[in-house]
Amino acid sequence: MNQTGIPNALSILSENRHGLLRDVACVMARHGANILTTQQSIISSGQKKDLSTLYFEFEGIEDTESLIIELSEISEVHSVERHQPFSKIYGKRVIILGGGAQVAQVALGAVNEADRHNIRGERISVDTIPLVGEEDLSVAVEAVSRLPRASVLVLAGSIMGGKITESVIKIQKMGIPVISLSMVGSVPEHADLVVTDPIQAGVLAVMHVSSKAVFDIYRVHGRRF
Amino acid sequence: MNQTGIPNALSILSENRHGLLRDVACVMARHGANILTTQQSIISSGQKKDLSTLYFEFEGIEDTESLIIELSEISEVHSVERHQPFSKIYGKRVIILGGGAQVAQVALGAVNEADRHNIRGERISVDTIPLVGEEDLSVAVEAVSRLPRASVLVLAGSIMGGKITESVIKIQKMGIPVISLSMVGSVPEHADLVVTDPIQAGVLAVMHVSSKAVFDIYRVHGRRF
Repeated sequence: MNQTGIPNALSILSENRHGLLRDVACVMARHGANILTTQQSIISSGQKKDLSTLYFEFEGIEDTESLIIELSEISEVHSVERHQPFSKIYGKRVIILGGGAQVAQVALGAVNEADRHNIRGERISVDTIPLVGEEDLSVAVEAVSRLPRASVLVLAGSIMGGKITESVIKIQKMGIPVISLSMVGSVPEHADLVVTDPIQAGVLAVMHVSSKAVFDIYRVHGRRF
Repeated sequence: MNQTGIPNALSILSENRHGLLRDVACVMARHGANILTTQQSIISSGQKKDLSTLYFEFEGIEDTESLIIELSEISEVHSVERHQPFSKIYGKRVIILGGGAQVAQVALGAVNEADRHNIRGERISVDTIPLVGEEDLSVAVEAVSRLPRASVLVLAGSIMGGKITESVIKIQKMGIPVISLSMVGSVPEHADLVVTDPIQAGVLAVMHVSSKAVFDIYRVHGRRF
């Protein structure tokens, strides 16, 4: 961490050459960087088509300028840019999964509540995917624990149980609280909070994530509203 | 890429020890893996609190089982799990940024349209952040080009220009098309498509991203609806 506890972020635009990530990682290791995130992709359209972009978040470096200079000297590198990390730009993420009709209503509540928080300087984003079916939904729920900055999950549907419940239990152990709409199936029995109104479910999810609001799911754990 | 062109994904649960990412990366390099994504974090609550999770997406490996065995033998590693990559679980991302009232309406259209696509086997997710102010919004727009799987941006507001427009031009060069609501300011002049109705803007964004729908923003480039 740097002095403010916020990671640094860099992006590198370069020719698409195998082994470039390794070369870049070596330069960063020499500078003592502790890499938290990397993201590598090939640009598929636009003026920069077929070039490679590499994005890093890292901590532990005081002198970022000399790191940038050394990275710029790698021959295939076109440019190196410094950024704010995603945690400062998009902040904590409220994740909403389930049937389209309900996901849209929970999102309506969450986006409006997040708007009120973000206007006062917080950063809370609301990310959704409408998805149905026990198998597909259980995989999507389980994967929330691997999503960067995911802070709470809202399950929005009419019937969920079986493997979906197994995934709920699994991500709770990984520190992700789960809000469930009141619905058929075993998911509500295992959720940290059950809310009947989808708008309110979205609002409460954002309030839990907020560093300013007074609501904490674990203080009303297992209750139904 | 493996034979299906889909990257592999692994997560590693381990003690939080400096240098573990490097050790893991070395094992992966020996197996010939081309790493596309890494995500490293410390679990902040729940039963696995203070353990470290490492997530990778990679391509170029045929024998993933022997890689998993070797990774499991690193002494601090608790477990190694195989996953589907995020592109198979959450798919392409429609990003919606702007004022809360409008973001919620665009999301309503996008989530409902994505529901119809995902029910037929596609994977399209709808990710939002309500955010206002030229400076903050321009940073958030520019950062869309670094978001994994971001495929289209919808700018939902009542007045946007200046630095926000500069960011629009920048991400368009990186291959991200931009849909703007009809609004005051210079953003609509530079958007790839201007749509008056926020619900329709959300629907068209999803249709553009879909591999099944017949709509392509670039075929109606610069038009207003």
